Amino acid sequence: MSKTGTIYGVGLGPGAQDLLSVRADRLVRGGRHIAYFRKAGRPGQARRIVEGMLHADVVELAMEYPVTTEIALTDPRYNECLSAFYAECTQRLLAVAETGADVVVLCEGDPFFYGSFMHLHSRLAGSVPVEVVPGITGMAGAWNATQVPITWGDDVLTVAMATLPEAELVRRIRDTDALVVMKIGRHLPKLRRAVEAAGRAEAAWLVEHAAMPGQRVTRLAEVDTVTPYFSILLIHGQGRRP
Amino acid sequence: MSKTGTIYGVGLGPGAQDLLSVRADRLVRGGRHIAYFRKAGRPGQARRIVEGMLHADVVELAMEYPVTTEIALTDPRYNECLSAFYAECTQRLLAVAETGADVVVLCEGDPFFYGSFMHLHSRLAGSVPVEVVPGITGMAGAWNATQVPITWGDDVLTVAMATLPEAELVRRIRDTDALVVMKIGRHLPKLRRAVEAAGRAEAAWLVEHAAMPGQRVTRLAEVDTVTPYFSILLIHGQGRRP
Ligand SMILES: C[S@@+](CC[C@H](N)C(=O)[O-])C[C@H]1O[C@@H](n2cnc3c(N)ncnc32)[C@H](O)[C@@H]1O
Ligand SMILES: C[S@@+](CC[C@H](N)C(=O)[O-])C[C@H]1O[C@@H](n2cnc3c(N)ncnc32)[C@H](O)[C@@H]1O
Repeated sequence: MSKTGTIYGVGLGPGAQDLLSVRADRLVRGGRHIAYFRKAGRPGQARRIVEGMLHADVVELAMEYPVTTEIALTDPRYNECLSAFYAECTQRLLAVAETGADVVVLCEGDPFFYGSFMHLHSRLAGSVPVEVVPGITGMAGAWNATQVPITWGDDVLTVAMATLPEAELVRRIRDTDALVVMKIGRHLPKLRRAVEAAGRAEAAWLVEHAAMPGQRVTRLAEVDTVTPYFSILLIHGQGRRP
Repeated sequence: MSKTGTIYGVGLGPGAQDLLSVRADRLVRGGRHIAYFRKAGRPGQARRIVEGMLHADVVELAMEYPVTTEIALTDPRYNECLSAFYAECTQRLLAVAETGADVVVLCEGDPFFYGSFMHLHSRLAGSVPVEVVPGITGMAGAWNATQVPITWGDDVLTVAMATLPEAELVRRIRDTDALVVMKIGRHLPKLRRAVEAAGRAEAAWLVEHAAMPGQRVTRLAEVDTVTPYFSILLIHGQGRRP
């Protein structure tokens, strides 16, 4: 019987191919089984990052989300549906690993920072060897794109998701030095109201597709109403700078 | 007259050499002028990361901090002293760039995230070409070392420095899902009291030398009183996980 393969959760960084770590670059180029999440009908953000890097004999394993915005986050069916999906993906990866082959799972940014791979990682625990390769986060790509440091001295940085209730966003924005907001999408109007209510509209930047083709850095005040698909909101800290 | 050189602020990531990005790896291995900060008498964390990677003909430019803990942070002389130091470092880098040579400044983690290079970056602005290469942060190395994801769903992550007043630390720890505390050093006893007062002692982990030789992951409750030199405190979020 062959040895079990290893499942690698590999952080790709924010987008540019030369921002993969040396370790990730080797795993991605050498991988014979490459898995990634994507929304049905979309190429997938992670898969797009590695375009042109994959081995000639690669077998691709696309894991397509069953739901995105069709069912409300608060509907219990949302969780059930996603849970069944992650369980099925886990079985697909295990089936490959049990043949003795390694599987590389592509992860945007860092795998352990709000990543989808975490839902497979917790289900795989104990059954096969799993290794995680950290990556440059999307937010580091975003503040780098603004060419301004995000935090100085003893600044507090708050990272929040735009899916939070508006009042909670206002409270968080009021109570921090530096801010990162992710998962924006259709929550942009709410997020904009929250930033304005907190009196920080002038200081806020929106970075779309950080470190990717089509990167765009805009003051929030100048962003039109079109929903940016893949974006991060930033407010830079103003802490001690000798 | 020769063209002016470029000054690169290069993020090295948390410590392992194969966690440098491909872009950083090329710049570090190819660099003929390599600069880095260090405390007097210490090899310097950033320099240590690249040990064995530098070009045979490299010229090293060590920038040694004039103060560390001798003057209180609140003493105005602290800022004056550091400010003069950064101005002098900036002149040293400029002098090299003006000969037409590039300079690679080594930065732990990501350069724009509480980094010392930021103090040179702001002083260099406009005088010579400057490029920043983002890196994997120390905190990503730390949560990866615990083998547990840091944030799920709509968890809020707070990043705070242990240099904050104790009451402020308590308030921040009470009001967040996931927590990262950096710059711990001699502030460990205060930080420990704050975590306990916030009722999170059981959930807190201390990661020393993440992704470096001597990496150690310990529950805060089990950390002895010896001050860990280079460490990060983490509390993992417990958000929605379908
Ligand atoms: C499910 S989270 C994954 C985060 C990822 N694990 C990381 O470390 O950045 C997806 C969110 O990350 C943000 N994001 C990640 N990379 C980005 C990039 N290069 N440009 C803009 N937004 C990005 C967006 O806000 C998006 O909604
Ligand atoms: C001046 S800050 C620099 C942070 C760096 N720019 C980054 O992105 O992580 C120095 C602090 O970072 C933390 N740190 C950075 N890398 C670390 C590592 N590999 N292990 C433990 N702590 C680390 C420690 O808390 C240290 O006091």
